[in-house]
Amino acid sequence: MLIAVLNGPNLNLLGQREPEVYGRTTLPEIEGMVRDAARAQGADLEWLQTNHEGALVDAVQGLRGRVDGALINAAALTHSSLALRDAVLAVRIPFVELHLSNIFAREPERRHSVIADLAIGLVAGFGAQSYLLALQGLVGRLRGG
Amino acid sequence: MLIAVLNGPNLNLLGQREPEVYGRTTLPEIEGMVRDAARAQGADLEWLQTNHEGALVDAVQGLRGRVDGALINAAALTHSSLALRDAVLAVRIPFVELHLSNIFAREPERRHSVIADLAIGLVAGFGAQSYLLALQGLVGRLRGG
Amino acid sequence: MLIAVLNGPNLNLLGQREPEVYGRTTLPEIEGMVRDAARAQGADLEWLQTNHEGALVDAVQGLRGRVDGALINAAALTHSSLALRDAVLAVRIPFVELHLSNIFAREPERRHSVIADLAIGLVAGFGAQSYLLALQGLVGRLRGG
Amino acid sequence: MLIAVLNGPNLNLLGQREPEVYGRTTLPEIEGMVRDAARAQGADLEWLQTNHEGALVDAVQGLRGRVDGALINAAALTHSSLALRDAVLAVRIPFVELHLSNIFAREPERRHSVIADLAIGLVAGFGAQSYLLALQGLVGRLRGG
Amino acid sequence: MLIAVLNGPNLNLLGQREPEVYGRTTLPEIEGMVRDAARAQGADLEWLQTNHEGALVDAVQGLRGRVDGALINAAALTHSSLALRDAVLAVRIPFVELHLSNIFAREPERRHSVIADLAIGLVAGFGAQSYLLALQGLVGRLRGG
Amino acid sequence: MLIAVLNGPNLNLLGQREPEVYGRTTLPEIEGMVRDAARAQGADLEWLQTNHEGALVDAVQGLRGRVDGALINAAALTHSSLALRDAVLAVRIPFVELHLSNIFAREPERRHSVIADLAIGLVAGFGAQSYLLALQGLVGRLRGG
Amino acid sequence: MLIAVLNGPNLNLLGQREPEVYGRTTLPEIEGMVRDAARAQGADLEWLQTNHEGALVDAVQGLRGRVDGALINAAALTHSSLALRDAVLAVRIPFVELHLSNIFAREPERRHSVIADLAIGLVAGFGAQSYLLALQGLVGRLRGG
Amino acid sequence: MLIAVLNGPNLNLLGQREPEVYGRTTLPEIEGMVRDAARAQGADLEWLQTNHEGALVDAVQGLRGRVDGALINAAALTHSSLALRDAVLAVRIPFVELHLSNIFAREPERRHSVIADLAIGLVAGFGAQSYLLALQGLVGRLRGG
Amino acid sequence: MLIAVLNGPNLNLLGQREPEVYGRTTLPEIEGMVRDAARAQGADLEWLQTNHEGALVDAVQGLRGRVDGALINAAALTHSSLALRDAVLAVRIPFVELHLSNIFAREPERRHSVIADLAIGLVAGFGAQSYLLALQGLVGRLRGG
Amino acid sequence: MLIAVLNGPNLNLLGQREPEVYGRTTLPEIEGMVRDAARAQGADLEWLQTNHEGALVDAVQGLRGRVDGALINAAALTHSSLALRDAVLAVRIPFVELHLSNIFAREPERRHSVIADLAIGLVAGFGAQSYLLALQGLVGRLRGG
Amino acid sequence: MLIAVLNGPNLNLLGQREPEVYGRTTLPEIEGMVRDAARAQGADLEWLQTNHEGALVDAVQGLRGRVDGALINAAALTHSSLALRDAVLAVRIPFVELHLSNIFAREPERRHSVIADLAIGLVAGFGAQSYLLALQGLVGRLRGG
Amino acid sequence: MLIAVLNGPNLNLLGQREPEVYGRTTLPEIEGMVRDAARAQGADLEWLQTNHEGALVDAVQGLRGRVDGALINAAALTHSSLALRDAVLAVRIPFVELHLSNIFAREPERRHSVIADLAIGLVAGFGAQSYLLALQGLVGRLRGG
Repeated sequence: MLIAVLNGPNLNLLGQREPEVYGRTTLPEIEGMVRDAARAQGADLEWLQTNHEGALVDAVQGLRGRVDGALINAAALTHSSLALRDAVLAVRIPFVELHLSNIFAREPERRHSVIADLAIGLVAGFGAQSYLLALQGLVGRLRGG
Repeated sequence: MLIAVLNGPNLNLLGQREPEVYGRTTLPEIEGMVRDAARAQGADLEWLQTNHEGALVDAVQGLRGRVDGALINAAALTHSSLALRDAVLAVRIPFVELHLSNIFAREPERRHSVIADLAIGLVAGFGAQSYLLALQGLVGRLRGG
Repeated sequence: MLIAVLNGPNLNLLGQREPEVYGRTTLPEIEGMVRDAARAQGADLEWLQTNHEGALVDAVQGLRGRVDGALINAAALTHSSLALRDAVLAVRIPFVELHLSNIFAREPERRHSVIADLAIGLVAGFGAQSYLLALQGLVGRLRGG
Repeated sequence: MLIAVLNGPNLNLLGQREPEVYGRTTLPEIEGMVRDAARAQGADLEWLQTNHEGALVDAVQGLRGRVDGALINAAALTHSSLALRDAVLAVRIPFVELHLSNIFAREPERRHSVIADLAIGLVAGFGAQSYLLALQGLVGRLRGG
Repeated sequence: MLIAVLNGPNLNLLGQREPEVYGRTTLPEIEGMVRDAARAQGADLEWLQTNHEGALVDAVQGLRGRVDGALINAAALTHSSLALRDAVLAVRIPFVELHLSNIFAREPERRHSVIADLAIGLVAGFGAQSYLLALQGLVGRLRGG
Repeated sequence: MLIAVLNGPNLNLLGQREPEVYGRTTLPEIEGMVRDAARAQGADLEWLQTNHEGALVDAVQGLRGRVDGALINAAALTHSSLALRDAVLAVRIPFVELHLSNIFAREPERRHSVIADLAIGLVAGFGAQSYLLALQGLVGRLRGG
Repeated sequence: MLIAVLNGPNLNLLGQREPEVYGRTTLPEIEGMVRDAARAQGADLEWLQTNHEGALVDAVQGLRGRVDGALINAAALTHSSLALRDAVLAVRIPFVELHLSNIFAREPERRHSVIADLAIGLVAGFGAQSYLLALQGLVGRLRGG
Repeated sequence: MLIAVLNGPNLNLLGQREPEVYGRTTLPEIEGMVRDAARAQGADLEWLQTNHEGALVDAVQGLRGRVDGALINAAALTHSSLALRDAVLAVRIPFVELHLSNIFAREPERRHSVIADLAIGLVAGFGAQSYLLALQGLVGRLRGG
Repeated sequence: MLIAVLNGPNLNLLGQREPEVYGRTTLPEIEGMVRDAARAQGADLEWLQTNHEGALVDAVQGLRGRVDGALINAAALTHSSLALRDAVLAVRIPFVELHLSNIFAREPERRHSVIADLAIGLVAGFGAQSYLLALQGLVGRLRGG
Repeated sequence: MLIAVLNGPNLNLLGQREPEVYGRTTLPEIEGMVRDAARAQGADLEWLQTNHEGALVDAVQGLRGRVDGALINAAALTHSSLALRDAVLAVRIPFVELHLSNIFAREPERRHSVIADLAIGLVAGFGAQSYLLALQGLVGRLRGG
Repeated sequence: MLIAVLNGPNLNLLGQREPEVYGRTTLPEIEGMVRDAARAQGADLEWLQTNHEGALVDAVQGLRGRVDGALINAAALTHSSLALRDAVLAVRIPFVELHLSNIFAREPERRHSVIADLAIGLVAGFGAQSYLLALQGLVGRLRGG
Repeated sequence: MLIAVLNGPNLNLLGQREPEVYGRTTLPEIEGMVRDAARAQGADLEWLQTNHEGALVDAVQGLRGRVDGALINAAALTHSSLALRDAVLAVRIPFVELHLSNIFAREPERRHSVIADLAIGLVAGFGAQSYLLALQGLVGRLRGG
């Protein structure tokens, strides 16, 4: 089982950026945790972070026919990128949307997601743990849960 | 560790009601699964389902000073009950909001929650598994995760 | 043929409450008229009035697999109760929505119904006679009309 | 007792047009049914169908001082014709608004009516039977019901 | 000098229709008054009333190159007829918009006009006298006032 | 003179719930203060608190023909309960709306009241003292002030 | 017969200010024309121009019981001054609202008037001639026209 | 292959009306060009222009079972006529919507079309050439392109 | 203890202006009542009424460091004057907002207040008695109630 | 004559992505068809597809002074990219906007285009044929059609 | 070169009013700084502060034909005074709009300006320094920069 | 002191693109002017222009811990890029937002900025001089002004 984790703009700053909102764990630390958890479930992991919408679209396109599922934390692109939505519509791979922060406790423009209706489900607000719960939810669904 | 699980209107019909949206597992079956998972993590469980907004408000009030955290699936009351919001504000107990279905793939009036901004986080769209992920997220947070 | 008639909040005050809007016939008088009309068409009747949203939800849930159809005058709950909508969605019994007054000649917030799109049809504005027309419409549809 | 039945645009196509929404009965068949029902209640009937807003306005004007009541199914003109509203305001004849389909289960722009607040009441969603229920409601009101 | 007066739907009912809003003078009586006033100013008059939007559009088209100016009381068509607007844009003849009632004291949908921004000016609220004031304003403008 | 005081959801938590907004006085303490003030003005008091919308509607219905006036602090139900509004419309008893906090300094959805336009007046923002001022205003009005 | 003419902010600049919108006639020239016309109809005139909302409110208050009617060109205050509206409501003197320019051909915020629904009628778009037409309309109405 | 071309209000004025928007070619000239192009592709043409909404509805109804496809330039009726939409829904004939001007560069109310979602496609902004491109697109689709 | 009472536009007309809304007591009579009540509580009173927004702003500025609290009935300025809001923000003196009429039973634009969120609380709907209740509420708060 | 064809995000997936919406022809196949058609009309073609907004902006900038016209299918960027709009504004080259699908039959956010008002015209809904019609329309306009 | 600086309501309180928003420098101190800077650039200065909208309108009118340019900090009047806008439109003198605070970081109603589109440009957020930058920008423009 | 100047999409076309809006000075010319001004104040400058949102985000991230402040003219990205906002939030470096044109005199979608509330202040409308004023404002603030 191969699973991709796609991370959008500014997530590379995790641990430095607004720690009262996003926590102090860095993205490489999270990547390590998720790789461990995936391995424990017999799954391989691909990991991407980019600040470029086009690169994220390229990456989603590249998933087609290769991976079994994905975790997507599109960060700021979550709320407006129709190009991302079109890519997700095109590849039709099962995925879970996740967010570090509770997007419902933030500004109104952070509450809308252009891909949430295409996802299996959504996990938000648990900080780094959001990745682990989302992984577990995805794997459960892929295994017929 | 004592955890309450509060379920709102019509969740007692689970397994019969719109199975293409909510799945075929019944609420007692879910309760069993969650009790097992809680026990495995060393936590006791209180379980409530009610179709009455007032009874849900009473139940939330009753949590104060007694439980360590809660899972709340307020169902239809999620979207409009300010009385529920006031009760949650009053007891100030850490809780996770959860939904069986992906509320973002449904009608617009199902996308707003009057309690989500008060929650630790949100889990939605994984069917019965939403309860397990939410439990895990709550316990993780309570244990300092 | 068994038909349920469900009446929402404040309909027990009929005849006293805003008679210029709702007329002077009392709810028991209407119940008598509808029972007579149902009997004449070979149908039995169940009759409920409640001021409690939760009790109305309970009642709708209780219709499942027992009655052939229903008349629903949800009164003030017509306009906002998603819990009622979910119950109606769950039991999937053919029903007619009815109102004593012409809801289109009243305040804007009385013009929206959360269950009308699930109904066979709607009858409004004929006072007590609304019940008789709705009954006739429901029976006609149940008999294949 | 003389009653007019006014039918707006495209109702002449009934039975062909979107049968899954409007049913397979043709307008002449409905006219026959309504004439029979009116006769049974001792009422004469005038029947009009037109695709022209101006002709409908002319017809409403012509009712003044001649008929006792009217059934109006203005079809698409229901939702926007202020000229129709003005005509109805001018002749001040008791009327019932009716629709074949449940307009509340259709697109939002079909849910607004420019004449509903002037009507005795509204019947919608019962297909051809809507005409018979509306007739009965109108006659009941005219006879003091 | 030749001036056209165009009257929209239901103005033929003037004197009968909602006299508390529109007064008791009939349209032929107003026509007489306006003809007298026009004659006194050395102008000929064309007069039209129609309930048909298409006929009004035809009439506006027919003004081109023949009349010096127009008074337009489009009644209900004032508020929604883009076809009327297009006709007025096409013939580019100076005109005054007029209304019998004070449209600002009526329902909100009566306050918008699709042709007012193309008019020299607007006169509203003076009943039959609105025609005389509008005529005077138009003639003043045509004579270089 | 008999006066009812009706209190909505979560007011039973007063003194514990968000003390920075609602103060530290408990509801029984307020009840004592209001009873003393009423007695001083020669009035008897009925006192109710409930978390159930249906029970509040029942209570309002029960006022009819029995009490001279009422103070209503409907709390969260203030903002959305059309059933409460209908009950108040039905019993037509003079009442004052009151709130502990200044609802205008809170979230927008707390600023709308479904019963305020039916009240004599409104008192908000004075904490426990709001009850005393409202009582005084009601008694003044009942005594012809 | 005594008639007041009240002119709001910036009308003192007439003839200089945006001549392509408002024309080149100055306010004193208009005052002269209106005085002549009033005299010809046997009416005396009071004339005021002010840039101060408070002064305009004072002036409207001062009309009570002294003048027979008024012409009001409130200019920019037309669109927002509830204080002006309250003054007009208080003195209840018949008045005509007038504007030099066609307010319907200007920016949207110029199309709303806070006093138009209280006026006999409205005249707009005829430049200086608007005053004369408004005067004529007012006198006609005062003389029972 | 038989193709109908339906033209709405004011298109008969083409060449005179707002030439800076619509160009100087007349409608008969366009008809000639389209007839030539149709003939070249082996198709016969029916051509209609009307200023009357009812006549356009009649015409659309008359297409059923007779023509293979249609070009519709409904002009001002494009933006508001639900009666036209209902007729198009009823006859279910493949059609292309076309406009002379680029409706996206005009006023907002010109940007909405009540029939566009029922069309194969849309061509706008090429003046008289819009007809030729739309014809080509329609024929291509009818021939299986 | 020194308390200022500030009254906005048109309150000088009290007793004459819309008595069905505002009652028949004049402002000087109210001033007398409030002075008596203040004296009874050992407080001195400053009283101002003005129709000029600027004068009201000047007056609010002048309160700083001199008075202990204020009652503000800004009348029409309540709903739109950001200048008043800024003045109130600047002087930061405790005040109560009051209205004679129940602003919630009036037009929508009367329901918004630009200063209410800065007030201790609000009293509305009790006519002249509103001043007395507001005074009592203010004094209570100033004395630590 | 040199013509550029610019294609936005995800169009490289054509033929795979949502074939029920976009058809089964691939982008290279379309490129071939358009090159043939251009050659037949004596025009050279530049062809670009990119998933990166910035690259599309760069490309539009690069057209200036080099190409005679352009076809732009900006896909998801059509609806939100002001940067694209600014680039188009800057180079001021005649272009046609085109879409494979009928954007008016899709979700509302697909109906707005940030560049349509700058285009000669728009072609949408004809699948691959949209490119050929757009090319023809552009060449026609460039050759003075 | 003569330059006017116009200051709106409550700016006379600068240094006392909300110092965390507006800073601690007083208006006379700012006037001194601006006078020095103007003198250094060879310009004379007129300085006005008023709390009265009418006085500000009078002042703007008085600039015509006398000053070379203006700095306008209209404070609260920035957001709503159409009378100010009309005055600025009438005198057509080049001016810069300035604000002490960053109006974009404040409440939404502070973000709209009725005069900004008429200004050369805008400077906001630099406290007292905003005046100096605005002066420099104005002088630069007046000297042809 | 090191200051970064970041320029968004299409600013590289300055001098060619819509010169009536943006002026004729090129970006390299502006860079020269700003470098001179910075040097005069003892500050070094970093200069970037990019058409790619991702590259701008990368650049903002790279400022952290290296520069003392920034000038940001994000051009079209100003109005919609939440990714830019997140980057600015993350690096928390003092910056001034600037625009060449007066964004308040342009289309409504140009009036909203996603970063303005995070800026020290805003300078807009002075063409190339905007950079110099913004630099001065930034340096003033950094030096404690």
